[in-house]
Amino acid sequence: MTDDHPRYVAKELDADDQLAHLRDRFVIADDDLIYLDGNSLGRLPAATPAHLDRLVRHGWGEQLVRSWPTWIEWGRRLGDRLARHALGARPGEVVVSDSTSVNLYKLAAAALDAAPADRRTVLVDAEDFPTDRYVVQGLAAARGLTVRALPSDLDDGLRLDRLRNALDHRVALVLLSTVSYRSGALLDMGAVNAAARAVGAVVLWDLSHAAGAVPVDLTGTGTDLAVGCTYKYLNAGPGAPAFLYVRREAQDRLRQPIQGWFGQRDQFLMSAAYDPAPGLDRFLVGTPPILSLAALDPALDILAEAGIDRVRRKGTRLGELLVELADAWLTPYGFRLASPRDPRRRGSHVTLHHPEALRISRALATEGRVVGDYRTPDRLRLGPAPLYTRFVDVWDAMDRLRDIAARRAWERMPGEPSRVT
Amino acid sequence: MTDDHPRYVAKELDADDQLAHLRDRFVIADDDLIYLDGNSLGRLPAATPAHLDRLVRHGWGEQLVRSWPTWIEWGRRLGDRLARHALGARPGEVVVSDSTSVNLYKLAAAALDAAPADRRTVLVDAEDFPTDRYVVQGLAAARGLTVRALPSDLDDGLRLDRLRNALDHRVALVLLSTVSYRSGALLDMGAVNAAARAVGAVVLWDLSHAAGAVPVDLTGTGTDLAVGCTYKYLNAGPGAPAFLYVRREAQDRLRQPIQGWFGQRDQFLMSAAYDPAPGLDRFLVGTPPILSLAALDPALDILAEAGIDRVRRKGTRLGELLVELADAWLTPYGFRLASPRDPRRRGSHVTLHHPEALRISRALATEGRVVGDYRTPDRLRLGPAPLYTRFVDVWDAMDRLRDIAARRAWERMPGEPSRVT
Repeated sequence: MTDDHPRYVAKELDADDQLAHLRDRFVIADDDLIYLDGNSLGRLPAATPAHLDRLVRHGWGEQLVRSWPTWIEWGRRLGDRLARHALGARPGEVVVSDSTSVNLYKLAAAALDAAPADRRTVLVDAEDFPTDRYVVQGLAAARGLTVRALPSDLDDGLRLDRLRNALDHRVALVLLSTVSYRSGALLDMGAVNAAARAVGAVVLWDLSHAAGAVPVDLTGTGTDLAVGCTYKYLNAGPGAPAFLYVRREAQDRLRQPIQGWFGQRDQFLMSAAYDPAPGLDRFLVGTPPILSLAALDPALDILAEAGIDRVRRKGTRLGELLVELADAWLTPYGFRLASPRDPRRRGSHVTLHHPEALRISRALATEGRVVGDYRTPDRLRLGPAPLYTRFVDVWDAMDRLRDIAARRAWERMPGEPSRVT
Repeated sequence: MTDDHPRYVAKELDADDQLAHLRDRFVIADDDLIYLDGNSLGRLPAATPAHLDRLVRHGWGEQLVRSWPTWIEWGRRLGDRLARHALGARPGEVVVSDSTSVNLYKLAAAALDAAPADRRTVLVDAEDFPTDRYVVQGLAAARGLTVRALPSDLDDGLRLDRLRNALDHRVALVLLSTVSYRSGALLDMGAVNAAARAVGAVVLWDLSHAAGAVPVDLTGTGTDLAVGCTYKYLNAGPGAPAFLYVRREAQDRLRQPIQGWFGQRDQFLMSAAYDPAPGLDRFLVGTPPILSLAALDPALDILAEAGIDRVRRKGTRLGELLVELADAWLTPYGFRLASPRDPRRRGSHVTLHHPEALRISRALATEGRVVGDYRTPDRLRLGPAPLYTRFVDVWDAMDRLRDIAARRAWERMPGEPSRVT
């Protein structure tokens, strides 16, 4: 069966890969384990342990509180690096702080509180990541607004049409993900922003599954607000702080509701009354977790060296190979593609549908030694992160998945829900 | 001048100190540097670098996303450890998450939204830490409530009287710090809670400057809500996540407004509508920063070995020595005590007033090699953390401070505001 799609073709693709050498910039502890879950937790950059150890021993242990004048700039400094290497934003528009959920809350609240009183609707995608929908549900309920969940689809043209039909002068806010956490479907940010702007609505983007995988052009697409995660394709480590973006021209007319001292004008004057800092600082709240923040630097070094456009090109080709092999090898076993077929309309992960996806993902991990992830109720997500995934990894992973499907090896696996973030 | 208070007395106190051996459990890179700022950033425990390195290399680098079933419990597990060793709370009442400011926001909002509509006032202390006041100002403004700042004082009896006079059936929430960040004044939590309960008001405590320094008995004092910081006396590292406490019986009738997926019932079912988890989990929001969280474990090992009561006894004696020397040596140079004189009414830091406190703190750090901190406009804070500060450190620090005052060495220092958290 492998004759139609021989492994040497994948090896040739690796030989031609301009980013192949970057795999050595990551810790690959077990070469037999195929890791296709960088869309959930990116791999450890090889430079990170020493970087963190130096911070801990020198910055904390020796310099102690005297490091704070440096540390206090890190959220902004790392935000500017992200803006430059991954997000297409200008300096002073991106800052790293808090979790994605808290950042969503801050920016969605700021947008809703700035909207005219007659705008009573928030639009979301019915299949967007739960935290996005939950945050907005809470904010809307507290303000007496209505949340309307638009049906999702793999066809971004259809999604855009539905959005345009739903957009009117009653819409205060639109919350969407650039890349769907579920299907990998990629939205045209510029088209969405333009459609929203035409009716005076604001769009808040969740870039969590896009940042570091596809080029994002926040300035060029006319984006006002965005948030995103740094522990997926940006490889900053488990639970690393998230980022938020506010277009420069919008910063001073927005206010977010969590009035912490890091958002205060002249923070260390410790004035009696809260007075939001000018610019992006007003979207900060409390003291940032420095150790978790620090891991973003060595990770961004690799991305900067690769260049996000080359990352995207490789990601597209990895996805194409994956889909080609899934079509050829897995269709007979009841799998079907649950991502857009056109690689230009897809992020870096590919989702397969199978009624037994949970047990299959478990068999794939334990017997196949391929780590992907499962999304309820029937999806298997495979995220070949371009910075460290080889074409042969994709080939081998699909070969092992085919073997598990052929042997029905998943039938021995437990079926209760998983707890993997 | 030193004859009245000879250094050998401090050496004798060290010889008698039951906790003296624990100093070796911390990294002391420079024995000549006297660090009296553990109330701002606690020292690095000696076991922490290896603990973090193992987490980074093994937990993240090798185990990758497969570590999440363990990591996802850490906020609760560390909360239970804190409850047991520092806070006097029961299992399932404390969780580590987010920053102190975000936790203040969540719990203050939850309390205000649960209060009867005719309770329109929030009481705070006029000299409480800025973020506490700012957070409450924002929540109150959004709800049309009034924030009343009670004048502070070094005399806790007077503060309690003022609070009792201000408490009536119109008060929804009282926000207070157990230990004042500024003066170190310690409040009687049980008395405050009882006075508030008598009029049906809820108290939210900020334990940031108390936790790890003075024994807190959340259960015994009848506390409903509290938050606090782990990077001061708890030594969990710069910006380490904060904790929050909600009394078990109050958990299910409160809701906080930041509806993230970590607060959702059956998180990984990813249901369409937010439904708060039962118990403490509903106060969580997003993915926690695991590297920053992890550093709390080795720090708590030392506290557990010491025992919070012994920490408190030593802290009291360190403070008494500091005040005794300040009285004897510094009064002639215009210093006066800005903390309660009775050590039982004070936390572990001591504050001195001097009109030139900013420049003095700088001269003390650069020429005296004593790190304390400055608080605007005229306070010098000295925090001799009991786990690693010797009595001779206090003696030497005060000797160096006296020398700087006598030589007016601070006159050469710049006077613009500082940026130290």
